[in-house]
Amino acid sequence: MKKYAFGVDVGGTTVKLGLFTVQGELLEDWEIPTVKADGGRMILPDVSRAVLAKISEKDLDKGDIEGIGIGLPGPVLEDGTVLGAANLGWGEFNVSDALSELTGLKVRAGNDANVAALGEMWKGGGKGCSDMVMVTLGTGVGGGIIINGRIVTGRNGAAGEIGHIPVAEPEDEPEECGCGKHGCLEQYASATGAVRLAGRFLEENKEINTILRDKELTAKSIFDAAAAGDGAALAITDRFCRILGKALAAVAAALDPEMFVIGGGVSKAGEILTDGIGKYYREYAFHAVRGAGFALASLGNRAGMYGAVKLLIG
Amino acid sequence: MKKYAFGVDVGGTTVKLGLFTVQGELLEDWEIPTVKADGGRMILPDVSRAVLAKISEKDLDKGDIEGIGIGLPGPVLEDGTVLGAANLGWGEFNVSDALSELTGLKVRAGNDANVAALGEMWKGGGKGCSDMVMVTLGTGVGGGIIINGRIVTGRNGAAGEIGHIPVAEPEDEPEECGCGKHGCLEQYASATGAVRLAGRFLEENKEINTILRDKELTAKSIFDAAAAGDGAALAITDRFCRILGKALAAVAAALDPEMFVIGGGVSKAGEILTDGIGKYYREYAFHAVRGAGFALASLGNRAGMYGAVKLLIG
Repeated sequence: MKKYAFGVDVGGTTVKLGLFTVQGELLEDWEIPTVKADGGRMILPDVSRAVLAKISEKDLDKGDIEGIGIGLPGPVLEDGTVLGAANLGWGEFNVSDALSELTGLKVRAGNDANVAALGEMWKGGGKGCSDMVMVTLGTGVGGGIIINGRIVTGRNGAAGEIGHIPVAEPEDEPEECGCGKHGCLEQYASATGAVRLAGRFLEENKEINTILRDKELTAKSIFDAAAAGDGAALAITDRFCRILGKALAAVAAALDPEMFVIGGGVSKAGEILTDGIGKYYREYAFHAVRGAGFALASLGNRAGMYGAVKLLIG
Repeated sequence: MKKYAFGVDVGGTTVKLGLFTVQGELLEDWEIPTVKADGGRMILPDVSRAVLAKISEKDLDKGDIEGIGIGLPGPVLEDGTVLGAANLGWGEFNVSDALSELTGLKVRAGNDANVAALGEMWKGGGKGCSDMVMVTLGTGVGGGIIINGRIVTGRNGAAGEIGHIPVAEPEDEPEECGCGKHGCLEQYASATGAVRLAGRFLEENKEINTILRDKELTAKSIFDAAAAGDGAALAITDRFCRILGKALAAVAAALDPEMFVIGGGVSKAGEILTDGIGKYYREYAFHAVRGAGFALASLGNRAGMYGAVKLLIG
């Protein structure tokens, strides 16, 4: 059995790298900038140099290294083919083959949201689960589906895109989602969605007295105000949780997961969020799947590195 | 390699049995009654006797038989534990172990809707797919999810229960679903759902002239009238397809399947149904998953037997 593995999470600004034991202990992590010039052609050579330099620095035996797991911001098929990553300037090519050729190491690649889900299953909020849905509440809503301990990739590498579950009729939503549709989950149940819900609530309820009128509306200011007992903020939070809880009940009718793990920046709101989502989930969910748990993600922005290693070692 | 396998599909009235080659050729099929007396305790002994009698009748070598795959009307875990089957009078026990003990053959058990999905993937409308969602439109709406060629079972054996996706707000649906909730998909997009949609449409549009007023309202009479160009029936069919297409777009955001296979009695309506569902699916679906195909199931009530064999041989 090999001893070490590298977990790499490629973002639009930085590449996070970690040296792990194959048991999943993070020994050291560091970052390098993501150089997007020239169609992103330097990114994999930079990753390769960083990994090989670390092997050298630590005086590791290459024979002790299982390989590199890597998460990427775009759809990735099971064989390591990325179908394109607009944030990196990449078109379609096989990342596993390319990075393997550069490093002489075995490589497994996956979508960043999906490997983050795998990381949370392995060492984070979903530890011990093998059927899990990760919900990442950031600017948008991302997700990752794990069935029998494995990432569900989908036909086009697009599985887990739960932010684009239709939750409203297009004619009821004047604004357009980033994807071009109207009425997607992430138009309501994300950081930007919370702000939209709040703006509409305040517009429709001009007579209501709330501390939100004195603040810049952000997901944080809204959930903080709710935690402090502000009535308007509580109503907005309730709406947010209701929309998300109902969408997750739809996912659960299909998949019957053991647990939902809630991560992303918005998840810093903590239990006011998981309790609220869980309450509406149970209201909308089929009785046989009503017992699914709700937990907060616990690995933060290291989830991707952990999951990339887990993807590699299987 | 063994030569033969038995596929068994246990229903509330009859048990369907098939003798197959391991390549999936159906050599012979027959039925026995489902004896539900005495808590259904005679069902597995009856299946065992039927299988052993067929082996004897055909003068087969037991060593040439791979085993028995069996589909059951209730939630079944991966290890063959049925969590109860109200239609059969069964509580919780391990069906695989029990039937294996009776027959001396290897047994694999699954939920009937899930094995039917597997059958359609193997030899039916989803042939050649490995990521597929089966949608069974009967009295209710059943389903089965196949990922990487394997049934998704779920934590409670309840994966694929897409009939209970919440599609309406509980306060907007006065009638109760069989599951106790209000607003489930199967309250609209099933045989009974079509009749409910039609009843409401005719009530709300008393001035509209339609041949449906002279007929007994059934899913068949509604879809037949739509195929004949009746305006009211077309409007009802459109509503049916819209609700179902939107729900399947939610499933696809999570799973990114290659194909949806539409089966069950209502699917006899044919292309008017798959075309309509597909149209609304594409309207509601995230762009990356919009290309999923729609096909009609082709194995009819033999899908369960085929899928049970596939479950057995893996």
